[in-house]
Amino acid sequence: MLELEERIRRDGTVKTGDVLKVDNFLNHQMDVELFQKMARQWKADFADAPINKILTIEASGIGIAAIVAAEFGVPAVFAKKSQSINLDGEVYTTKIRSFTHGRVYDVIVSKKFLGPEDHVLIIDDFMANGCAMEGLLEICHEAGATVEGIGIAIEKGFEPGGKKLREQGYRVDSLAIVESMDPETNEIVFRH
Amino acid sequence: MLELEERIRRDGTVKTGDVLKVDNFLNHQMDVELFQKMARQWKADFADAPINKILTIEASGIGIAAIVAAEFGVPAVFAKKSQSINLDGEVYTTKIRSFTHGRVYDVIVSKKFLGPEDHVLIIDDFMANGCAMEGLLEICHEAGATVEGIGIAIEKGFEPGGKKLREQGYRVDSLAIVESMDPETNEIVFRH
Repeated sequence: MLELEERIRRDGTVKTGDVLKVDNFLNHQMDVELFQKMARQWKADFADAPINKILTIEASGIGIAAIVAAEFGVPAVFAKKSQSINLDGEVYTTKIRSFTHGRVYDVIVSKKFLGPEDHVLIIDDFMANGCAMEGLLEICHEAGATVEGIGIAIEKGFEPGGKKLREQGYRVDSLAIVESMDPETNEIVFRH
Repeated sequence: MLELEERIRRDGTVKTGDVLKVDNFLNHQMDVELFQKMARQWKADFADAPINKILTIEASGIGIAAIVAAEFGVPAVFAKKSQSINLDGEVYTTKIRSFTHGRVYDVIVSKKFLGPEDHVLIIDDFMANGCAMEGLLEICHEAGATVEGIGIAIEKGFEPGGKKLREQGYRVDSLAIVESMDPETNEIVFRH
């Protein structure tokens, strides 16, 4: 998606350690007008899919997922990190390793909100190694839900996540795929 | 807001310990169509205010804030709980006590995304004792931002948060105020 790529070039900052900071429009401050354009792109790309639920994981996926859910006219569910006393015991659960935060999270989704009747579009802001996505897929499989596709705002194409999931047959729709990026020059090359 | 009250009555569950579970439409599964109606209500209520930014706190406020930001046509910023290595050092910070989770969080907002030019509407899903809100207000004051108002989906009117903030002069716009609720009968009385 050209507009997203241009925005990443304009406002993104490449840091050492393969970090791409886009917190001024994607995952701290949220440019919801851009989110709406992204949502319309996914809606067009998945026009043939009977999607009835958006699934994401807290926290930075939630804003995008809410806007996408509004575009599709379906509810969104966000997987929660770690057990909260406000949740019933009836949950799907898995563990997700976060390289960004250097720790392992317990991730849960209430069984009330995901089941065999669901045709899911999974949404997230970033994909690198795909660990978060594998956790969400595991929860979908446990629920017997059909995964119609995976919508990612920014995929780090030089990390293995996207390749692995596409090889497994998933429809991965990344709106911007970073082929390479240089913390010295801030140059970002996108895959097309 | 009548539709929200009816939804709380229909789908909410009162638990012992003053817990109101509304996770099937508000803060685990998100009914974004309802969020859009809530957003339109806040837009009407704050039509006279020069709001240019929505502020919330992760995680359960983010979905509502994103939809509200779309309605107002402004960006949303969510305060983050605990330091992430992806954030620069230049942040406003405060501590917030969560009674739900029984712990104290460090909460941060990047200085890039909040400043004296901002006229802020703070959005959250719940208000009880008001601790989270006081933390967000402190961050706004530190930033020199103008707080135009506070939009809450569900206020627990029997807890002190709303009263305290109104006495301090804040425009608190809670779309449903629970006067009392009974875990035995699941009866919920709203304030009007």
